This record gives sequence, structure tokens and C-alpha cells, in this order.
Amino acid sequence: MTPFPARLSDAVRKHGPLCVGIDPRLDMLPAAFRSLPPADALERFSLRILELVRPYCGVVKPQAAFFELFGADGMKAMATVLRSAKSMGFVTILDAKRGDIASTATAYAEAAFGPTWDADSLTVSPYLGRDAVEPFIAEARKSARGLFVLVRTSNPGGGLFQNLVCDGKPLYRHVGDEVAKWNAGHGDVGAVVGATHPKELAELRAAMPDVWFLVPGYGAQGGTAADVKAAFRSDGSGAVVSSSRGVVFPFQPDDPDWETKVVGAARRAQAELQSR
Amino acid sequence: MTPFPARLSDAVRKHGPLCVGIDPRLDMLPAAFRSLPPADALERFSLRILELVRPYCGVVKPQAAFFELFGADGMKAMATVLRSAKSMGFVTILDAKRGDIASTATAYAEAAFGPTWDADSLTVSPYLGRDAVEPFIAEARKSARGLFVLVRTSNPGGGLFQNLVCDGKPLYRHVGDEVAKWNAGHGDVGAVVGATHPKELAELRAAMPDVWFLVPGYGAQGGTAADVKAAFRSDGSGAVVSSSRGVVFPFQPDDPDWETKVVGAARRAQAELQSR
Repeated sequence: MTPFPARLSDAVRKHGPLCVGIDPRLDMLPAAFRSLPPADALERFSLRILELVRPYCGVVKPQAAFFELFGADGMKAMATVLRSAKSMGFVTILDAKRGDIASTATAYAEAAFGPTWDADSLTVSPYLGRDAVEPFIAEARKSARGLFVLVRTSNPGGGLFQNLVCDGKPLYRHVGDEVAKWNAGHGDVGAVVGATHPKELAELRAAMPDVWFLVPGYGAQGGTAADVKAAFRSDGSGAVVSSSRGVVFPFQPDDPDWETKVVGAARRAQAELQSR
Repeated sequence: MTPFPARLSDAVRKHGPLCVGIDPRLDMLPAAFRSLPPADALERFSLRILELVRPYCGVVKPQAAFFELFGADGMKAMATVLRSAKSMGFVTILDAKRGDIASTATAYAEAAFGPTWDADSLTVSPYLGRDAVEPFIAEARKSARGLFVLVRTSNPGGGLFQNLVCDGKPLYRHVGDEVAKWNAGHGDVGAVVGATHPKELAELRAAMPDVWFLVPGYGAQGGTAADVKAAFRSDGSGAVVSSSRGVVFPFQPDDPDWETKVVGAARRAQAELQSR
């Protein structure tokens, strides 16, 4: 199988760096979906979003929480969405922020990369340390998948621990340095770095030149195309920029014209990111 | 509904501080279960474990990863196990180490505490910061549930980030101090502190006198009853001590006498912890 960074790189070269976050919030779905059982509504809406955004992005990121909320049926819907995205040619990032140790981490990774979800990549949380990340890496490498480790997140309260200065540099730099080591020679261990901190984005890009960045916080969370510029390498590669609400929910639930608005939002996001 | 800390306290007073971790690893199940479809095997084994350990502990902690590995069917099994544990009178801790922000965190919390899993409490990861923990707290308080935030974990590589010294104290102390603030006045935001670091356990107990501790790493991971002593308040309350493999898998898969061994391991763990 083609290595994960090569597949990612190919998707970005063809479609630009936009990654659409599939965050199907039940209360925001178009009216037509809301008479369906919740998990069906999530699945059908997500599949329609995949079709609508297909011309404008090569990477999609389903958010596990919104599927998990509906239990077994939600998880079945998530599997269908991931499988369909893959068969449509998207590179998939399962945004589940998993984190556990040893054989438990391996079980999560087997779920993500095995027949259960069969995602191309997974977001993971670093707090548990070395033996919480390495089993994910080992599992990912068995079948050419990738990881994105949380380094500096886009949320307003993200600095509470991430910005603490430890032995002369902020915690997120310590995590970033470990990610760079894990990534070395493979290119398959990426970093989540928010669009809402352009200075830190630039600092981290300089510190981890070979690491792929997943940049959330673009669009609805306030990050602009100018803000994310620093995430890219000088050749324009090295980052995917994720927008969820901005692309998936640019409409009110009772808007009959919601599909046109999704297409418009995806087209605009693609164009903005390409003219950065 | 009785507040979460009162229910936990009651369980510990009646049965002692042992918490049995329900980690159903398919390849370790007794031979009799291994001809069943995987999710059925996990469910039936877990339900039998609940019956076997019922006299010896008041708290159980199902590990989400082992259920998630089998997708929708696994999630259905996990729901059954959580529901059964509750109806048998156990206080349940869903060990899923979730962590995300804002409405995504709320979705995970709704899954954990709503009809989907209906757990009494959930483990959460603090790396994403303030707006990653507070939505879990808000959701938990709506229906008298609880949280356990990762502070100092029991795994050998846990110190990689947790032990970094930031502004004069280790990261885990910063997290602990926030947990103490979140917990204040409610008693429902606990801390995960590993049995494998007795000194740090004592240090954290002194720093967070009112916080409930969930102490993993007892038994198979090497923590002893003497090691966990420091986790308790002077009146003997304030901590649950979790053992997974040590109680759930004290046998080889082909051992016809596995049930007796589980009962023996649970009884011994209970006695050891009560004579600490």
C-alpha cells in the first residue's frame, strides 16, 4: 500500500489543503433529515456532504463523538461514512482523540485501522506519554496508516496546560519535539496545531519541518487563510486545514437551498486556501 | 438522585476500595467463550465476571477500547455490561479517556451519561485544557454523575510529559491543582493517579485532600497494597483502587477452573486492600 504521507500529499496536490470535518450535529441537520432515526439521519447527511464537497477537497475528518452519541447505530453509521469516503477516494482522518496505554492503545488502534473503522489516520492525545503513543504508531505502520498527535490545539482554553513553560520551553514544544522524533524516517506521525495561534504555528513549523500538520480552527473558529499560511512548507505542502461547521453548516435547518450553500462554502474555502 | 461522591463513598464503605477493571481481551477469554461471535463473547464473559466479583467490590470500570474494537456489536455489548452492572448495584466508571472541546466534548459526555452508556462516571484526558474538561463537568452535574481526570498515570512512559517541571512544579501537579478547583464544592471531579508512583500519590493526596482518586496499576502493573496506602484520606475514604488483569485474568484460557480463580483473586484483592 502507498505510504500514508504519500497518499496525503497526493490528495493535497490534487485538491488543495482543505480537509472537511464531518461533524453531524443532529440539531443542525436540514429539516428533511430530522424525521429519520438519528443514526440514519447522521449517515445520510454525512454521505450527502461527501458527495457535495468531493470536487473541493481530498481529505475528510469524521468526528467520532457525534456518532458515538447514538451508540451502536451511530457507530454503524460512522463505519459506513468512513468506508464510503475511502471508496470515493478521500483520505480519511478519524477524529477520535484516543489515548490509552499498552494493549489498550493497541485495541483502539486496531479498531481505527482494522476492519471496524478502516480509517487512513487517527487523532491521538499525548498526555499519557510514550507508551500511549508508540502502540498507535506500531499499529499504524502495519498497514501504512498515519496519526495526528495533539500538540497545540485551537480552542480558547487550550493554553491552560499546553502553554505552561517547562524547562525553558512550552509544553506544546516538548510534545512537538517528541512528535518530530516519532515521525522521523517515516513521515506518518503528524501534529494537530490550531489555526488560531499563527505565531505558534510558525514556531512549530520551524521546529518540525518534516511533520505533517492538521490545522483545525479555520473558518467558524476564527482562523483565516492568512493565519494558516505559516503551517505550510516553503513548497506549499505539509499541512491540511480543517473546517467543520464553516463548510458543513453554512445554512439554517429550514433552508431548502442548503446543498448550494455547502457547495459554495467548500468552493470558497478551497479557493481561499489556494490563494493564500 | 444521590450525588456521585455519596454513591461512591457508600460503595467503598460497604465493599472496600477495590474497583474491578472489565478489560475483556478476546485472546485471553476462557476457551468456552471463544466459539461465540466476538462481541457476544465479550458480553457474556463480562457479565459472568460481574456476578463473580459482586461480593468483593462495589465499583467496576469497563474499558471502552476492548468493546470498540468490535464496532457496533461491541458497543452494544458495552451498553449491556454497563446497564447490567448498574442494575446489580455497582457504581460504574466508563474508562474511555475521552477528550475534546466545546460541543464535541458535550456529545461525548451525553453519550457517556445519557441513554447510550448511562455510566455513573467517565475518565477524561486533560491535554486540551479548560474548555475540554468543563463541558464534561457541566453534563455530569445535570444527572449527578462524576469524572476522573488523568493526572499522574501508572504506565512506565507516563512521565514523558506529566513529569516535566513547569513554573516550579511538575505538570501533573498543575493538572491536579485544576482538578481540585473543578472539584471544589461538589466532590464529583476525581483524579486518576497511578499506584506505581507511591511518592507522587502521597504528594497529590496532600495537595488535593477533597478529591476522589481512581488508582490504577494495582496488581498486574506492580502496585502493592502498601503502595496505594497514601491514596486514602486519614479516615480511609477517598480512593478506589483498580485491578484489571490481576482479578479478571488470573487463569490460562484452557483452565476449566477459571471461575474459582477469579473469585479467589477478587477476594484476595479485597482483603489485601482492607488490611492495608
